[in-house]
Amino acid sequence: MRNKKLQIGLFGFGTVGKGLYDVLERIGSSNVEIRRICVRDLSKPRSIDAAFTDKAEDVFNDEQVNFIVELIDDADAAYDIVKTALTKRLPVVSGNKKMLAAHLEELIELQREYDTALLYDASACGSIPVIRNLEEYYDNDLLTSVKGILNGSSNFILSKIFNEKMSYPDALKLAQDLGFAESNPSLDIDGWDSLFKLIIITVHAFGLYVAPEKVFTYGISNMNDDDIRFASEKERRFKLVAHVEKIEGNRLIMSVMPQLISRNKYIYSVEDEFNGVVIKGLFYDKQFMFGRGAGGYPTGSAVLSDITACLYDYKYEYKKLNDSQLPTYTTDHSFRVYYRYTNADDLALVHFDSVSESYISDNNKYVVGRVSLAELLRVQDELRRRNVFIAAYPRD
Amino acid sequence: MRNKKLQIGLFGFGTVGKGLYDVLERIGSSNVEIRRICVRDLSKPRSIDAAFTDKAEDVFNDEQVNFIVELIDDADAAYDIVKTALTKRLPVVSGNKKMLAAHLEELIELQREYDTALLYDASACGSIPVIRNLEEYYDNDLLTSVKGILNGSSNFILSKIFNEKMSYPDALKLAQDLGFAESNPSLDIDGWDSLFKLIIITVHAFGLYVAPEKVFTYGISNMNDDDIRFASEKERRFKLVAHVEKIEGNRLIMSVMPQLISRNKYIYSVEDEFNGVVIKGLFYDKQFMFGRGAGGYPTGSAVLSDITACLYDYKYEYKKLNDSQLPTYTTDHSFRVYYRYTNADDLALVHFDSVSESYISDNNKYVVGRVSLAELLRVQDELRRRNVFIAAYPRD
Repeated sequence: MRNKKLQIGLFGFGTVGKGLYDVLERIGSSNVEIRRICVRDLSKPRSIDAAFTDKAEDVFNDEQVNFIVELIDDADAAYDIVKTALTKRLPVVSGNKKMLAAHLEELIELQREYDTALLYDASACGSIPVIRNLEEYYDNDLLTSVKGILNGSSNFILSKIFNEKMSYPDALKLAQDLGFAESNPSLDIDGWDSLFKLIIITVHAFGLYVAPEKVFTYGISNMNDDDIRFASEKERRFKLVAHVEKIEGNRLIMSVMPQLISRNKYIYSVEDEFNGVVIKGLFYDKQFMFGRGAGGYPTGSAVLSDITACLYDYKYEYKKLNDSQLPTYTTDHSFRVYYRYTNADDLALVHFDSVSESYISDNNKYVVGRVSLAELLRVQDELRRRNVFIAAYPRD
Repeated sequence: MRNKKLQIGLFGFGTVGKGLYDVLERIGSSNVEIRRICVRDLSKPRSIDAAFTDKAEDVFNDEQVNFIVELIDDADAAYDIVKTALTKRLPVVSGNKKMLAAHLEELIELQREYDTALLYDASACGSIPVIRNLEEYYDNDLLTSVKGILNGSSNFILSKIFNEKMSYPDALKLAQDLGFAESNPSLDIDGWDSLFKLIIITVHAFGLYVAPEKVFTYGISNMNDDDIRFASEKERRFKLVAHVEKIEGNRLIMSVMPQLISRNKYIYSVEDEFNGVVIKGLFYDKQFMFGRGAGGYPTGSAVLSDITACLYDYKYEYKKLNDSQLPTYTTDHSFRVYYRYTNADDLALVHFDSVSESYISDNNKYVVGRVSLAELLRVQDELRRRNVFIAAYPRD
């Protein structure tokens, strides 16, 4: 695409699509133009005058369109758009992490087959260029773990609870009122959004694609006042942490779950709707990247960075996928957790390798013990349904 | 260099050179080998058995050597090595920020003329990939400022003073004992090291090369207990901050000087020998990157990232140098400072646009006022010689 003018076919005109449009207007780039915008509902009033359509064919059949940007919610429709773009050799930028997490293996193949770029840095951490950095900079064997707060909405809620002593329902409502949380907040607060981003990050960090259903994922929606009191007494905070780490035997562990984070950790200070990622390596110790993880303008400008990268023929190389010694994914790994439960049945639900603390009062019961990822994955659905709460509780 | 084995000619085997060697040994890469090592003093005992030489020709005349890594202290010698490498079309990685800051314009030309890569991400912030990110990700017009702690040694000293109430001379001695500071610490604590990094960063951030002597540069060596008390009373800390910012009229201001930083700023929490960089943009607000800025292993692995980038034919594009509306550099910009002085002569030295506070006691005198960068640049040498101390003192 070098030295060519990009004529974009844009799918979706929600928060991010509109954000991208505004950012482009503001910088007045002569190399990049939005030629057509495909939306679901053509009758909805729009704040701008542009070539809207509700038919994907109108975009793909427009011979002037030489670039696709896909910023829609519907993962299935996003998949069709990206696939069509690649097979037509149209470079494409996508922001749909759910779709990417589900189809990344196939989409990598398609990029190779059609020698066409699919970029999606904006999908993983809004304005933090984590994919690009893992791909380009941390591209040798020294990387040991990537760990972070990847979802702004749930972090906003946790910040309000721990900084302003807001109740969980009030904090959730505020997040929704401010537009940080989806009207169906499960994607954010139950960890799914973080999970999808973790799947994408793991491909670029360690060269391994792990299907989302294989990773223990648990959010903050079951957290109650007793849990919050426990954290405060230990001078810690709950943060919803996505985590991938190389352990001995060249094996990878992954999880998305609340963690009791103590004050001396970088991510303790990631507040409100911000995201923060800690990248650890054998020789460089820790790197911390921090920035806005959501919102129309930050994500819109991240999308623009992907777009301008294509102007310079940038493609992800997926170098690590070709490593001769790819790590293997495992759930055979135990670690310390805090588990608050209601009755004997709840306690019997989870098999602990060992229990080091047990607390019982009339209104509140918890144990601290070691449990494996395999066991947590086995009882994942049940943990969500019951009045219990589990969080990683690392020793410092 | 794609799919080729890199046979490195390495210049310098100090902390970083040895760090690179160790990192390569540890990962046992089959694509990268150090073939020859050129050192100044061949008689010095070495911890490893390798093909050492003290003649640059031995490296450049070795036909197997297809890649140069330059990690020496002497800026003039480093310049010769990098120039020779480029003219022989040998890709080269350099860690010498002083040399780069002085010769970057010519070296960019040589890279174009000989179509050969010179990479130097390790030079600017140790293990933080700030150059690569500015070059690749923040490559549109939205960038407004880059500000950071770019020198680990001086930050280590400031941390000891403010966290552990150590005296300045004790903190400096500890830094030297631990190997964080040079035996001649002026490069670190007088701001020169930060300045060289800022010059390089500005080229990649804003497409403008500004010669080092044009930028007001002032370090922490004049700081005394009264200054430290002033900062503590205001609940701030001194940090040595390098700063480039786009102001109205598409103009750039730059400076390296101590700043009174309040607790709510990201860089307030950058402790010890770490570096931290805040990148601000019109739409994405702030990004913060944080990591080890010095040391053999962190910098060695940053050098390795540059080396492996060359394996994939990566070059800096210097895209912003071609912008049609390059900003212009200016020192015509006033801002608030704290200025502690000894006598009337010192006060008369600096012309303030306005003075908002004035304090006089028997042992301690200071003013708070507004002063321009042009004025500071005019009196820069004198400020260093006298028993005075000046620091930026932004309103929050």
